[in-house]
Amino acid sequence: MPNSPESAEDRLIARYFRPLAKHPGALGLVDDAAVIAPPPGCDVVLTTDGVISGVHAFPDDRPENIGRKALRMNLSDLAAKGATPLGFLLSLALPAAIDEAWLAAFAVGLGEDAERYGCPLLGGDTDRTPGPTSVSIAAFGAVPHGKMVQRSTAKPGDHIIVTGTIGDAALGVLLRRDESLAKRWRLSEAMSAHLKQRYLLPEPRNALAHAVLQNASAAIDVSDGLAGDLAKLCRASGAAAEIDVARVPLSDAVRAAIAADPAMMETALSGGDDYEIVLTLAPDKLAAFRTAAHSAGVAVTEIGRMAAGQGARFLHEGKTLSFARPSYSHF
Amino acid sequence: MPNSPESAEDRLIARYFRPLAKHPGALGLVDDAAVIAPPPGCDVVLTTDGVISGVHAFPDDRPENIGRKALRMNLSDLAAKGATPLGFLLSLALPAAIDEAWLAAFAVGLGEDAERYGCPLLGGDTDRTPGPTSVSIAAFGAVPHGKMVQRSTAKPGDHIIVTGTIGDAALGVLLRRDESLAKRWRLSEAMSAHLKQRYLLPEPRNALAHAVLQNASAAIDVSDGLAGDLAKLCRASGAAAEIDVARVPLSDAVRAAIAADPAMMETALSGGDDYEIVLTLAPDKLAAFRTAAHSAGVAVTEIGRMAAGQGARFLHEGKTLSFARPSYSHF
Repeated sequence: MPNSPESAEDRLIARYFRPLAKHPGALGLVDDAAVIAPPPGCDVVLTTDGVISGVHAFPDDRPENIGRKALRMNLSDLAAKGATPLGFLLSLALPAAIDEAWLAAFAVGLGEDAERYGCPLLGGDTDRTPGPTSVSIAAFGAVPHGKMVQRSTAKPGDHIIVTGTIGDAALGVLLRRDESLAKRWRLSEAMSAHLKQRYLLPEPRNALAHAVLQNASAAIDVSDGLAGDLAKLCRASGAAAEIDVARVPLSDAVRAAIAADPAMMETALSGGDDYEIVLTLAPDKLAAFRTAAHSAGVAVTEIGRMAAGQGARFLHEGKTLSFARPSYSHF
Repeated sequence: MPNSPESAEDRLIARYFRPLAKHPGALGLVDDAAVIAPPPGCDVVLTTDGVISGVHAFPDDRPENIGRKALRMNLSDLAAKGATPLGFLLSLALPAAIDEAWLAAFAVGLGEDAERYGCPLLGGDTDRTPGPTSVSIAAFGAVPHGKMVQRSTAKPGDHIIVTGTIGDAALGVLLRRDESLAKRWRLSEAMSAHLKQRYLLPEPRNALAHAVLQNASAAIDVSDGLAGDLAKLCRASGAAAEIDVARVPLSDAVRAAIAADPAMMETALSGGDDYEIVLTLAPDKLAAFRTAAHSAGVAVTEIGRMAAGQGARFLHEGKTLSFARPSYSHF
C-alpha cells in the first residue's frame, strides 16, 4: 500500500483547518496531539464549552458564526479568570448534510477570531454524527502561578462591577424567534438588529483580562444570566450581593423593550448569553480598575456591593425582585 | 432571589462528577475553568477525542464503558507521545432519555479509570442534545520541554515496534454485529469474548509512556488501523516502512479467524480501534527499550524497519499486500 491516499477526514483537515494552525505546537495538525510550553511561572487555565445546532444556535445560522460563537464562549471564560489565551482544541461532529462549502465558511469565521483574539487552533477531532452539528471547544490560557481569578473569593464590602450591557442577547433570542416583538417593543430597526446580533455573536471581554487579573477579588462570566451567575458567585464565596437594579447597564434597545413590556426586566436580568463579566473589587482597587478598564476600552459599571449573608438580592424601587427562573440552563 | 436553587445541571454535576474532581485545580467543579501548574520544565501535551453513540460505540453499550472508552482513547494518544497524564475536561451531550441511573453508572466507570490512569477530571460542560449521546474529552499530559515524541521524526534504518496484538478490535466489532461469525471463524467462547472485549474497552499503553519518551524516534497510537497509521507516520517522516507481516503480533483469536477466512488478514492489519502504539527506534536504542518495556509489563514486537522512500509496505510470503481500505475513518 505505498502512497496510501489520505482519508477524507485528513483531506478536509488539511484544506480547511491547517491554515488556522499557525502555532508551532499544533505541528500542522499532522500529529495525534499538540504541545504548548506555558510561559515560565504560569499556570494553565482550562475551559470547555460548545455549540449544538438547535440548542445554542439556530439551525440556519451562518456557518461563519457557529465556530466564532463556540470560540468566543470559551474566550469569555478565560477573560473572567484573568487568563491570556494560549490556544484551543476543536471537536466537530458533523451530519452528512454538511458540505465543503459549509466547512470552508465555518473555518474562515473561526480563523478570523483565532487571529483577532490571539488564540490559535492547536488540534482537534472530526467525526460524522447522525445528530445535529456540534462544535465543542477546549480553550487554554495562562495566568501567573496561583493567580487565576476565582468565583469563590468575593468579600463583604467589595464593589460589584459588570462590563458592557446586560440582557441584549436574552431579548435578541426572543426577537429571533418572533419578529413581531420588534413592533410590540417599539424598537427601531437598529435596536432590533443590535439585540439579534448580541445573541448571534458574543463580544467576550478579553481586552479586560489583565485588569481583572490585577484587581478583581472574584469574577465570573455572565453566560447563564446576571441573576443566576451572581447567585453562583455568592454561593461559592459564602457571601451576599446587593444589586441596585437602576444601575444595571442596559442598552437603549433593552430600555425600550422594558418600557413597552415591564416583564422584560426579569428576562434581561436572568436571561443567558450576555458573555459579559461580573467581578468584585476590594474598595482600594476600584480606582486602579476603572483606569485600566478605560485604557482597555471596555465600559464598566458599578451595580452594587457584596455583603454578609447569602444570595444575590436585586433591589428595584424599594422592593427585592424575585425571579421565576433565576438562571438560564440549556440542560 | 436569595438562596436561588441550583440548576438541574449544577445538581447533576455536584452529585455524579464532583467526586471525580479530586485535583485541587478542578476547584470542586464550581468555577468556569480549571487550573493546572505543569511540572517545572515541562510542556503540556493536548489531545481530544470522543465517543458518539452509534458511531464509536453501540447504543446498548453499558454506560460504565462509554466514559471509560472515551478517556482511554485520549490516554492512548498521550502514551504514544510519551506524556504523563495531568487530567482531562469532559463535554457531555445527553439526549432527554438519559436518566440519572445512566449518569451514575457512567460516572462510576469514568471515575475508576481516572483513578487507574492517574488522570483526574478537571472540568467540563453538560448539555442536552436532540442527537445521540456524545462524550468528548480533551486530555492533557506533561513531557520534558521539547521532548514530545512526534510521528514525523522516524529515520531510515530505525526498527519498527508495535505493542500488544493487532486486529482484535476490528474483528471484535464485526463479531458484535454478527454473532454467527464466531462459528464461521471456529472461535472458542473465550476467543470470541476476547475480541469483543478488545473493541468494547481499549487498554491504552500508558505504562510504556516513559520508555517511549526515553527511546522512541517517532510514535503514533494505532487507532485507525496499523496500515493506515503507519502510512501517516511514513508520510509525516518522509520515509518508508517495510513490515514483515509474519511478525505482526496476533492473538490466538485473530489467528483462528484468519485461518478460517484469509480475508480477515486485511481486516486485522487495516481495521481500527487497536489503541496499541507503533513506534520507531534507532538501532542503539533497541536493547534499552526492550528492557524498559519488560519492566513495564507491556509486550512489544519488532515488525520491520524504516527505509528510504515513501509508504508502508506490508510484505507477506514474498508479496506486497495491497489494501482496499488502508485506514479506518469514522468520517
